[in-house]
Amino acid sequence: MTIAVDAMGGDHGVSVIVPAALQVLAKYSKLQLILVGDQDTLKKELLARHAKNEPRLTIQHASQRVEMDELPAQALRTKKDSSMRVALNLVQSGKAAACVSAGNTGALMATARFVLKTLPGIDRPAIISTFPTTNGTRNMRMLDLGANVDSSAEHLFQFAVMGSVLASAMDNIDQPKVSLLNIGEEAIKGNEQVKQTAILLTQSKALNYFGYIEGDQIYKGEVDVVVCDGFVGNVALKTSEGVAILLGKIIKETFQKNILTKLAALIALPVLKAATKRIDPDRYNGACFIGLQGIVIKSHGGANINAFAHAIEEAIIQVEKKIPQLISNKVEQLLKM
Amino acid sequence: MTIAVDAMGGDHGVSVIVPAALQVLAKYSKLQLILVGDQDTLKKELLARHAKNEPRLTIQHASQRVEMDELPAQALRTKKDSSMRVALNLVQSGKAAACVSAGNTGALMATARFVLKTLPGIDRPAIISTFPTTNGTRNMRMLDLGANVDSSAEHLFQFAVMGSVLASAMDNIDQPKVSLLNIGEEAIKGNEQVKQTAILLTQSKALNYFGYIEGDQIYKGEVDVVVCDGFVGNVALKTSEGVAILLGKIIKETFQKNILTKLAALIALPVLKAATKRIDPDRYNGACFIGLQGIVIKSHGGANINAFAHAIEEAIIQVEKKIPQLISNKVEQLLKM
Repeated sequence: MTIAVDAMGGDHGVSVIVPAALQVLAKYSKLQLILVGDQDTLKKELLARHAKNEPRLTIQHASQRVEMDELPAQALRTKKDSSMRVALNLVQSGKAAACVSAGNTGALMATARFVLKTLPGIDRPAIISTFPTTNGTRNMRMLDLGANVDSSAEHLFQFAVMGSVLASAMDNIDQPKVSLLNIGEEAIKGNEQVKQTAILLTQSKALNYFGYIEGDQIYKGEVDVVVCDGFVGNVALKTSEGVAILLGKIIKETFQKNILTKLAALIALPVLKAATKRIDPDRYNGACFIGLQGIVIKSHGGANINAFAHAIEEAIIQVEKKIPQLISNKVEQLLKM
Repeated sequence: MTIAVDAMGGDHGVSVIVPAALQVLAKYSKLQLILVGDQDTLKKELLARHAKNEPRLTIQHASQRVEMDELPAQALRTKKDSSMRVALNLVQSGKAAACVSAGNTGALMATARFVLKTLPGIDRPAIISTFPTTNGTRNMRMLDLGANVDSSAEHLFQFAVMGSVLASAMDNIDQPKVSLLNIGEEAIKGNEQVKQTAILLTQSKALNYFGYIEGDQIYKGEVDVVVCDGFVGNVALKTSEGVAILLGKIIKETFQKNILTKLAALIALPVLKAATKRIDPDRYNGACFIGLQGIVIKSHGGANINAFAHAIEEAIIQVEKKIPQLISNKVEQLLKM
């Protein structure tokens, strides 16, 4: 199995991506990695890490780099030899089974869509990621997290199909519970797209449709998949980060209040640190661009070594499970029904 | 000042609402309250609380009650003598300066809109509430939280105007910073409505437009007002609740792990409780239905006595500040520009 890694993407570039790649290579003895990027920079980094002669690691030179704030359309037009584009080309040509990048999300999505194309029966790729829940170690997957705005009912239905296939394959769930994110406050529940999607999901026998859920149920662990428009999903994801930061900051400030609370902190902080491990963002790093003719994993731009390694491992499992093939099969099955 | 209280709404009804009303009356010596609901039930409750002869408290009988799960359109059609409707009628006829209810949100919105009508120049009322931020004691107000789905740019602009007026009057801010909730991940940033709203806000000189913010910035305290569609705002609000519950549960479980962590909990829990006070939902209870010809405050259905009392106090301040009048003035000023 060979995976292409965009070595120039993300906030930290090669200093995080190269050691992460070496870490994953040490763990998976049959894995081959292609590091895509500036060959001089990469050679220097490998030399510094005494890994110049690692036989399962090759360098594919790319002369350009997509900046984190570059406009996607511009990157697509002017950066034809970027590390991102070359890594995706390796997937398209079959030289790699998946691509992992921590680069500019919009540019990666636009380029991936252009290079790889969507699967037959899928109109738009979506961004899907895993989230912790209050239900023990059970996880939940949510899509779309920002690839599409103004998704139609047909698009949301396709997201549901893809989410169900991914949850089933990755978490070995026979009939993943698929839910539709909605609001309950408004006179006539929800917007037109969501209501239409509910009809499609109720009619379809191919999915285990759970029904509507509201925002406060996302993390409850009642469902395996949460489907929503990319604008809504992105706001939910980012808002969650914001709340976690708010709570963390308030707890820290309260423990800093006086000498007594500072003493309490000495005892409490190790326990609080253990608590945050369960929702450690590193362990959840690696969103999937689902619906493409190829596997593309997007790492958080600010990922550290462990987090980026986790994103590569996510790619490995998706390759093993043949996710794009499974989605194609499911779409074909649906078309026959 | 007289305020009408829907005494039959919410999960706990008179057992919470009557003591909350008495609590607020004791605090504000010039306040008059009208409790609207079944007179026998109310008389019994007041008798039990030794408040039968409170001169500043009157009972207005209403023979019906809107159930929490009742469809708004049905409540509007069939519950013309509900406590909710009668309380709103008191505002409409000028007998009360505001209405406070913990009842069915959709029914309250539909009925309030029907009975009170929107202010001139405002197409749709919105739900606005106050949120804590990481920036010390600074608060933020966000709208719409669920009254409208598929809001157009004109609607979002009106929300911005109303939010700015409310933040300015309630928090004594000269030029509240008004932001537009958006996503940054997608190829062309945001959806059409948000982009159009940004143009309107940039052109308008009457508002202090901050620009786009993403979900993780909501709680940062950089802005005074966050404007978004009601579907998006409701998801953000509910998701925030879900994250807080998730984190609270994980922390609790970690402290319950073994004898050592249980001992640590004895020391840490008082500090953690002090921390949660800063984001105590009771202190933030009382969302405003803004944009109506009258003041309507919606309490959380599950509010306890302190929380419901807070919602009544929110109504008192809005009456003192003459919020609907201020919004009318601002709209008129904008029309002249």
